[in-house]
Amino acid sequence: MKSKSSRKVSLSPRFRIACGKEIALGPGKAELLQHVAETGSIGKAASRMKMSYMRAWSLIQTMNRCFQEPLVLATHGGEGGGGAQLTEFGRKILTLYRQLEKQTAEATWTTWKKIQSHLKI
Amino acid sequence: MKSKSSRKVSLSPRFRIACGKEIALGPGKAELLQHVAETGSIGKAASRMKMSYMRAWSLIQTMNRCFQEPLVLATHGGEGGGGAQLTEFGRKILTLYRQLEKQTAEATWTTWKKIQSHLKI
Repeated sequence: MKSKSSRKVSLSPRFRIACGKEIALGPGKAELLQHVAETGSIGKAASRMKMSYMRAWSLIQTMNRCFQEPLVLATHGGEGGGGAQLTEFGRKILTLYRQLEKQTAEATWTTWKKIQSHLKI
Repeated sequence: MKSKSSRKVSLSPRFRIACGKEIALGPGKAELLQHVAETGSIGKAASRMKMSYMRAWSLIQTMNRCFQEPLVLATHGGEGGGGAQLTEFGRKILTLYRQLEKQTAEATWTTWKKIQSHLKI
């Protein structure tokens, strides 16, 4: 896993789910969901991603607007801006998004190895 | 194909192949290769993508530097900055890149349909 080539060469599939003119879900929003789930706080999740609370809040609003149900529920007020958690729906969508990545990694492995063999490393 | 939902909601997988600190190949570079193949000219390919000749040239230099063989051969001079063509190696790499996209579309179809069913459309 720590061979020279695996450090230097990488394939990054990034999924962007567009809904009209908005991005309903992409790598950044998925990471934000993950951090909200882990920290129970939009502020802490934003801090981990080095973004402002307002930016994180805005991204969450976009997700909640694009999907049929909210993905994140926030409790305003209290120290640190209140808590937040993923809804069951939010966890389901995040799991589906991670499935896209996993299925892609599996399906493209052989082709990626072929491309990799032609790169200078 | 032209239903309301297919116009409004979309899944865009984008592959970025990193080689050290450089991007050896990604959606923009793949599109550039495609246009060079179709037009036989870096200038025309750049123009189709609304980028400068120098920008296109620089992207091609990066690709040629990252892979073990050149993907594009340019003939300098002459009207319009000379011709350019994909090498056999370049065509092979572009085909492999398109395979990544195709394999991904197939592997993620069911999961994508599930996510899609939860979007407001």
